[in-house]
Amino acid sequence: MLGEFALIKEFFSGHDKGRGITLGIGDDCALLAPDRNSELAITTDTLNEGIHFFKGEDPFYLGYKSLLVNISDLASMGARPAFFTLSLTLPDSDELFLREFSRGLFSLADKEKMALIGGNTSKGPLSITISAYGYVAKGCAMRRDLAKPGDIIYVSGNLGMGGLFVKAGYHELNLASDLFSIVHKKAQLIPSRTVFARALRRVCRCALDVSDGTVGDLRHILERSNVGAVLNLDKLPLDEIFDQVNLTALEKVELAAFGGCDYELLFTVNPKKISLLEKIAACHRVKITPIGVITKDKNLNLLFENKPYVKANRPFEHF
Amino acid sequence: MLGEFALIKEFFSGHDKGRGITLGIGDDCALLAPDRNSELAITTDTLNEGIHFFKGEDPFYLGYKSLLVNISDLASMGARPAFFTLSLTLPDSDELFLREFSRGLFSLADKEKMALIGGNTSKGPLSITISAYGYVAKGCAMRRDLAKPGDIIYVSGNLGMGGLFVKAGYHELNLASDLFSIVHKKAQLIPSRTVFARALRRVCRCALDVSDGTVGDLRHILERSNVGAVLNLDKLPLDEIFDQVNLTALEKVELAAFGGCDYELLFTVNPKKISLLEKIAACHRVKITPIGVITKDKNLNLLFENKPYVKANRPFEHF
Repeated sequence: MLGEFALIKEFFSGHDKGRGITLGIGDDCALLAPDRNSELAITTDTLNEGIHFFKGEDPFYLGYKSLLVNISDLASMGARPAFFTLSLTLPDSDELFLREFSRGLFSLADKEKMALIGGNTSKGPLSITISAYGYVAKGCAMRRDLAKPGDIIYVSGNLGMGGLFVKAGYHELNLASDLFSIVHKKAQLIPSRTVFARALRRVCRCALDVSDGTVGDLRHILERSNVGAVLNLDKLPLDEIFDQVNLTALEKVELAAFGGCDYELLFTVNPKKISLLEKIAACHRVKITPIGVITKDKNLNLLFENKPYVKANRPFEHF
Repeated sequence: MLGEFALIKEFFSGHDKGRGITLGIGDDCALLAPDRNSELAITTDTLNEGIHFFKGEDPFYLGYKSLLVNISDLASMGARPAFFTLSLTLPDSDELFLREFSRGLFSLADKEKMALIGGNTSKGPLSITISAYGYVAKGCAMRRDLAKPGDIIYVSGNLGMGGLFVKAGYHELNLASDLFSIVHKKAQLIPSRTVFARALRRVCRCALDVSDGTVGDLRHILERSNVGAVLNLDKLPLDEIFDQVNLTALEKVELAAFGGCDYELLFTVNPKKISLLEKIAACHRVKITPIGVITKDKNLNLLFENKPYVKANRPFEHF
């Protein structure tokens, strides 16, 4: 069985070179000479076994998704990913797990040209905390507090896959095993939106990523921007796989509205900039869907097939 | 019971202002405009219940120490602490715990003028991961790879309290309850060495903090600097409280040599700079003790009362 330092060397070293990195793994701190003309965007997220992922999750998927959820926060600011740290708590030094976990992690890190500059490993119930860092030109970050009345609300990609996977994983819904495998993979190997997000800054000042559920996350924008919105739930885009799922139209929409863990971009755009937005999206081959509008009136009005949607709903919170 | 967002607002908000912080808590990322003439030092450490601290640990102590172990890494590079993020996993939203934990945390953060710029809370077994950030003038960081043959090895403060507390906590040693309380407090409310460490850079190029045990940590310096050392174990400085502890001289020394969790600075200084070092230490009222010398020969020779110390030893590792 590998010791702590051997484990780090075997599975996590050699990925710590990059622009501005003066000192990588192996000292008390990493040292960075940050970009002079950029702001540094910093985010951190934790995944705990049994809470954020099912016990026995495929370690490749887990490595990928642990980084993806953090990269998604960088994307939502329009930041270019640069580096990350990893704090890994493991019940034991399982080499097979570590090999697959690190393969999944670096498959995404390498694609995003992110260096792993430090971290720690310790013993305990499986838990992964990553802090991720990116650069964004000064004053150009997309922020939650910059939505304006009249802005059109858009979402990238499709919604509901995160919610569908969790529902099926808890056996609240029965999916054929081959269908479940596809849902599982799609819910874990989520494409990152970093490249599209950086282009999006040309037409967008306000964005976030859908992690707690579309409606709950939209509420964060409304509160921070001191505005309201009309949201057309029936416009929420669903993956074509939903055609094979035995749920009513409303149930599908509810997964897209409240399910969370989709890691798509929710953003607002001034109507004058829509044609440019559409060109950018086409150029990056990213599907975008208008789903509502920001209003001066501070309420959030949810519509389903042009009628008010009134069911109680609450964004995901841990406590 | 407080929800996740209310919990963050109640106990962890309002500490996110500081020099260079463009955007604090509440968005997907924090945004920083880093110091132009400095390097950014980054470190991250995790404390897990039952591994890094005993179940039922005083939450004030825990808040303090979670940050201290990270600040200690900044100190060992000679960096000025600037800000941190907190990832907190809790079994439930216990307000009494959170009040005391955050009091302990901010008692140290405020003293060090550190802003809390972001983080997350989630449900699960109690675990705390902090990433801490500091600034150090370009090229001036103290590093593990810069020890030179002939350098004198020093340690700040006293050693062994971390090891003594763990031994007593596991009932491998019986301490009277009032004595145990003092040991407990001293092992948790460890003074930070950040101010002394920044002054130390005038005379020192190589330092780290004693977290895994003096001998194990010295080995990190030797490996990275490609040198050896002679270490006089009987010179390791002990707190006066050890006079009241029923252990042999050798047993006490072994706690100081292999116990870990002391978070003092272990550093090497060119003999020509000793008189300046002594002035700096006196000026900062920090006790320093010469405990050995760096050698060209790459072995680590441990001496106890001028004789080789031969007992098998291994630095603390999690696996």
